[in-house]
Amino acid sequence: MIKLNTHYADLKESYLFYNIAQKTKAYLEENPDQHLYRMGIGDVSLPLCGAVIEALREAVEDQGKKESFHGYMPECGAPVLRQTVAEYYGKRGVTISDQEVFVSSGASDELGDILDLFCPESNALVIEPAYPAYVDANIMEGRKIIHLASSKENGFLPEPDENLKADLIYLCSPNNPTGAVFSREQLQKWVDYANQKGAIILFDAAYEAFIEEPDLPHSIFELDGARTCAIEICSLSKTAGFTGTRLGYTIIPKELERGGLNINSMWVRNRTTKTNGVSYILQKGGAAVFTPRGQQEVRANIQVYKKNAAVLMEALDQCGIWYCGGKNAPYIWMQCPKGMGSWEFFDYLLREIQVVGTPGEGFGACGEGYFRFSTFGSPEDTKEAARRLCTLLGGK
Amino acid sequence: MIKLNTHYADLKESYLFYNIAQKTKAYLEENPDQHLYRMGIGDVSLPLCGAVIEALREAVEDQGKKESFHGYMPECGAPVLRQTVAEYYGKRGVTISDQEVFVSSGASDELGDILDLFCPESNALVIEPAYPAYVDANIMEGRKIIHLASSKENGFLPEPDENLKADLIYLCSPNNPTGAVFSREQLQKWVDYANQKGAIILFDAAYEAFIEEPDLPHSIFELDGARTCAIEICSLSKTAGFTGTRLGYTIIPKELERGGLNINSMWVRNRTTKTNGVSYILQKGGAAVFTPRGQQEVRANIQVYKKNAAVLMEALDQCGIWYCGGKNAPYIWMQCPKGMGSWEFFDYLLREIQVVGTPGEGFGACGEGYFRFSTFGSPEDTKEAARRLCTLLGGK
Repeated sequence: MIKLNTHYADLKESYLFYNIAQKTKAYLEENPDQHLYRMGIGDVSLPLCGAVIEALREAVEDQGKKESFHGYMPECGAPVLRQTVAEYYGKRGVTISDQEVFVSSGASDELGDILDLFCPESNALVIEPAYPAYVDANIMEGRKIIHLASSKENGFLPEPDENLKADLIYLCSPNNPTGAVFSREQLQKWVDYANQKGAIILFDAAYEAFIEEPDLPHSIFELDGARTCAIEICSLSKTAGFTGTRLGYTIIPKELERGGLNINSMWVRNRTTKTNGVSYILQKGGAAVFTPRGQQEVRANIQVYKKNAAVLMEALDQCGIWYCGGKNAPYIWMQCPKGMGSWEFFDYLLREIQVVGTPGEGFGACGEGYFRFSTFGSPEDTKEAARRLCTLLGGK
Repeated sequence: MIKLNTHYADLKESYLFYNIAQKTKAYLEENPDQHLYRMGIGDVSLPLCGAVIEALREAVEDQGKKESFHGYMPECGAPVLRQTVAEYYGKRGVTISDQEVFVSSGASDELGDILDLFCPESNALVIEPAYPAYVDANIMEGRKIIHLASSKENGFLPEPDENLKADLIYLCSPNNPTGAVFSREQLQKWVDYANQKGAIILFDAAYEAFIEEPDLPHSIFELDGARTCAIEICSLSKTAGFTGTRLGYTIIPKELERGGLNINSMWVRNRTTKTNGVSYILQKGGAAVFTPRGQQEVRANIQVYKKNAAVLMEALDQCGIWYCGGKNAPYIWMQCPKGMGSWEFFDYLLREIQVVGTPGEGFGACGEGYFRFSTFGSPEDTKEAARRLCTLLGGK
């Protein structure tokens, strides 16, 4: 008889966002007239920008005419998009070749698929609190997880621990859920550690477009030595509102090798075997994000979310509540008041002021006592949620 | 130091279609004025049909307006598309629930991803000649392959062998590359074998829409007992010209379990962890394939390819060359003339009549001496290629 992947049995039964959905659904069934202020799941609310819509329209028309129709796309990405992304890095002073750019269906898909490159016997270090899929995807492969707890004391940005023998290292900066961003000095320590130990860093840069302080690194490849130890996984989901449209890209330097195997070449082999490329329509739409008009428009949308963050931060400041994030990231990570547990605080906000956030405990045990707000909601809802928070939590 | 997946080193260096591309590129560099008649890779040539284009247009406009914008899609597929696919099966007399339909980015992606459900220690039986990715994706996981050679003698449709202890069984019908289609009786034997052995069949139904003989099964779920032993992987690539647009669906019955693990539930867990769903735009476009207008239009396109098949079959008949496929499948599988090897015949056709096909040996050792033609080219090119073939191979 066939044996299934029994590691699935090691997963916890249900999933953070599923639990939130169930709780809010139950609340709405009991209180059908209530409007909820949804700042839980990190989904965007603004539509795609004009430059992207125009490119998508053109792409659809291309697919309807014989002379412009596109069949199978190159498995690693359309050459024009790979080149465009490489130039986007170039403008930031980071030299990347088009052959180091792989187009993906988004960071979530890629974070799952890319684990195929690594031996299940190697471990994975996850800095917690963390996006739950980092842990779950590795449990599914039977990979040992090293949980590295971060805390308020280190600003949720821990340093590498010389005693940990980490193999695969997840770094997410700007961070989901804490909104904390590694400085160059902090990130350099991780790069040096990875090179010294022969580890590989999976750098999740999904929120890089939200960085506004000029000295903070957007890409791990801004750091010396990253080309021999890092893979960077990027997404247009938050940069350009592609959560439901789906497109991302991954950077794998040509120098990245371990044990005589070249990781860039392995990923080419993986993609040419296990995919037939990403939709022509989506790649044409995604390329428009990197045009001058596209950049201007997506930055304008990001500013809307940043104003949401400012409104929430002001409310928390007024209440004297500790938080991090918000400034260079679309997430705010606050300490629950009065020693409340994070699910307790979730229920409290839902019941008292109809505000939905994400309990910190869902991102790992050390997230207990903290709470995440997403700033992707509508300005109107965010303002009202901030006002209600302020009243509830005793702000001025 | 991290250990990479060393099974990648067990893969052959290069890939069938890559080799063909290199050889044709070299030929064109030497003969820049020659037109090539490309019947190698199975890529479609007709644009998307009107019903799909209209739905894609609407979907793009939806994404550009706040009130109709779609963010994250449900990971297992849009409910309306899952329901639509279930009804498509229902019309054919096969009862499938919407919860058994999973929307994918296409069969190629899904065939790679779905291996995650199975223990690497279980083996995979591949009937050869076969789509090379079946074998390669399993080699990447270190899974033992049982190569079951088929032959002209059994019509390239072998029966299960009682002595083989197969765990995972790949069946592709209509077959790529041979174009052969299992009869109900033949397929029932495989279903019974899988249930008896506790094996799982991965049924690749990418070409089901090309079946024209009424008694041949389109879905493995037309057979008794398939719900306890089979997963069906489908694609709109060939049905509706989605090779470069990307959309597919997978059927996993609720009853499918092994060793106390439910495979439908495992796949839900996989998708909710490792993806954020398939693009709203593509799902809306794909759903249009199943409308009455969409069905009429995609069937009209398929008829164009079927006429290509008829033209090629007539040429081969005139030359007295043995072949199978073509009637219920978009591929024709011919025996190379004069005892030629399949790469030898490839070079011969390219050099003498500028026709590009696919050498049978690329689909497994037992494909040596055979050659695949795809019927997805333009009618004009196909007619001219058939004429040249006829002249070269001594037809009337």
